[in-house]
Amino acid sequence: MEIAYAKAGGLVPAIVQDDRTGEVLMLGFMNEQALAETRRTQEVVFFSRSRNRLWKKGESSGHVLKIRDLRVDCDADALLVRVEPVGPGVCHEGYRSCFFRRIDEDGQAEVVEQRTFEPEQVYGPEKKG
Amino acid sequence: MEIAYAKAGGLVPAIVQDDRTGEVLMLGFMNEQALAETRRTQEVVFFSRSRNRLWKKGESSGHVLKIRDLRVDCDADALLVRVEPVGPGVCHEGYRSCFFRRIDEDGQAEVVEQRTFEPEQVYGPEKKG
Repeated sequence: MEIAYAKAGGLVPAIVQDDRTGEVLMLGFMNEQALAETRRTQEVVFFSRSRNRLWKKGESSGHVLKIRDLRVDCDADALLVRVEPVGPGVCHEGYRSCFFRRIDEDGQAEVVEQRTFEPEQVYGPEKKG
Repeated sequence: MEIAYAKAGGLVPAIVQDDRTGEVLMLGFMNEQALAETRRTQEVVFFSRSRNRLWKKGESSGHVLKIRDLRVDCDADALLVRVEPVGPGVCHEGYRSCFFRRIDEDGQAEVVEQRTFEPEQVYGPEKKG
């Protein structure tokens, strides 16, 4: 099938959802090569906009995301990846999900989840992965 | 708080998730004004890239999305909106979720959900909303 990569400069957003709990864990972007690698390895590979290269989730932390289901939306310009996450969390700040902050009524971001791991022990001087 | 709109040309992806079931319903984009309108009205307002204007979800179908929780990710460049959806589905093709197709092993898109409404009866000659 054709994915509408061109619509957003070659990248489509890919939502990562825990297949067991339904929790939305993070959002990344994939280009054609990242999706091909994701499908080939059955583990999530993004295209990192900041590093401008393919980025296998878990490449430094070991917290890989095993594919359980792969969906595409009606316009073929967004992906939903249901995964089995390996490890205590996907977020480089030490949380299970990157969406650990609520925007409250005053527009302030408030942390509403508990840390599940110490990022320094997992990433060392690196920030992500 | 500051949302990183600049990172992707003024728009951030906003994941819409059913607050009750956990099902991911769709992905849209918001600019600063769309997020402000979403917060003010407590119903989802996107910025439509194809129409180049604010787009209140449900403006033609009546299938509005009532805000139940609003989250921002670690990098402040993606939103997660948990909603109570009004009506039988959010997808203009007649499904509860826009992610009604699986990408199978051969890379083909396969419909794996049941239609929940007849789009022609809801949208008439219009295609979305």
